[in-house]
Amino acid sequence: MKIEGRNAVSEAVKSGKTIDRVLVKNGLRDDASQNLIKEIKNKGIKIHFADKITLDKESFSGRHQGFIAFVSDFKYSEIEDILSSPKGEYPFIVVLDGVEDPHNLGSIIRVCECAGVDGLIIGKHRSAAVTDTVMRISEGSANHLKIAKAVNINSAIETLKKNGVWVYAVELKGEDIYKSDLKGPLALVIGGEDTGVNKLTREKCDKTLTIPMLGNVNSLNASVACGVAVFEAVRQRISE
Amino acid sequence: MKIEGRNAVSEAVKSGKTIDRVLVKNGLRDDASQNLIKEIKNKGIKIHFADKITLDKESFSGRHQGFIAFVSDFKYSEIEDILSSPKGEYPFIVVLDGVEDPHNLGSIIRVCECAGVDGLIIGKHRSAAVTDTVMRISEGSANHLKIAKAVNINSAIETLKKNGVWVYAVELKGEDIYKSDLKGPLALVIGGEDTGVNKLTREKCDKTLTIPMLGNVNSLNASVACGVAVFEAVRQRISE
Repeated sequence: MKIEGRNAVSEAVKSGKTIDRVLVKNGLRDDASQNLIKEIKNKGIKIHFADKITLDKESFSGRHQGFIAFVSDFKYSEIEDILSSPKGEYPFIVVLDGVEDPHNLGSIIRVCECAGVDGLIIGKHRSAAVTDTVMRISEGSANHLKIAKAVNINSAIETLKKNGVWVYAVELKGEDIYKSDLKGPLALVIGGEDTGVNKLTREKCDKTLTIPMLGNVNSLNASVACGVAVFEAVRQRISE
Repeated sequence: MKIEGRNAVSEAVKSGKTIDRVLVKNGLRDDASQNLIKEIKNKGIKIHFADKITLDKESFSGRHQGFIAFVSDFKYSEIEDILSSPKGEYPFIVVLDGVEDPHNLGSIIRVCECAGVDGLIIGKHRSAAVTDTVMRISEGSANHLKIAKAVNINSAIETLKKNGVWVYAVELKGEDIYKSDLKGPLALVIGGEDTGVNKLTREKCDKTLTIPMLGNVNSLNASVACGVAVFEAVRQRISE
């Protein structure tokens, strides 16, 4: 897999990911690039310097900013790994139901990582996977987040519930999220762009939580909805 | 300007925007499309039915879903319009400093509309404008939100302050947003993707507010950061 862009490569280097080599454009003089080159060298990672044309050819996005890292493919975690090592007092998990757009997945991974979520569970079907594009959009934060692939989202939810986690769907027509207690063992289920959380999946959840909508167009983008819900949980958990 | 896609066209129709005509694909039989066609007719808007090839030719995004509306260009508001008619007790405004990506602007417009924000102020320079793409990404919510273009963001902030509005930059290294009072006359300043809120602009603001970051990669996408900050204000304002 390739990781492109200065920030994404820098995050991959910091995370201790297995990087085979980094392709760097000749003649980068700015401080940020110089610092990153130093860092790559310090970690003992191979650097190949090359001209812009070579990097443009290797680039899939056209936005490499002079840095392309070649890394081993993304290593998914198991749900058990996510449950076994909560960062806070209780597990804090996000489950995605049918988020197919890689931009949304990348942005959601970034949200989860910034919010200190223990892990993300995505479906094997009807779901974007952690590809090069997702990695770039996530600004490399996918390297710092446990991500599990579930064959079946509903069985994954069963597993979470058996382990004492409260599973809440974030959707329209539920309880006001701001009046709900999000401080215990928690999994938030976020639905896809057009479909929202699947009806059957929603029924599997302990409750549906709703972000109050005060306008005419009552739907947020999946990654924004995830951000609002996840950070409301953060607010409650850190105010304890 | 063209508006494409069933949801975006439906929103434009509902909002009472000046629509010259709507191009509709022949033979759409599903309920959602039939309902929209009925609504367009009820509003007395001209419909032209045409084959897929004609719509594909007119489409800029390739995702028209059988509906393309031709509307008059976006009508910007003045800052005074936004200030003069708060929806709640006090004005609630979002200011963008250098958000250049049309996807982020569209998504931020959607956030503001869903959160019942009174209006959005964007810069004339270093900023995306409300184009067809932005309109589509916003799912038509740009039709329901007052958007003002400021020649100079710093003077716009001065105007807001003179009108008794507290102006807070949302950025790293400020006060915890969850410990700040967001219930009064409020403007939140959101920075661009890479640059954040400009240093000078930040100094013009009354305070800097920070979303607590608990991970390794401490930056949220501009539209997600906007969502988290704006909905924290919503939470405080509706809990009164």
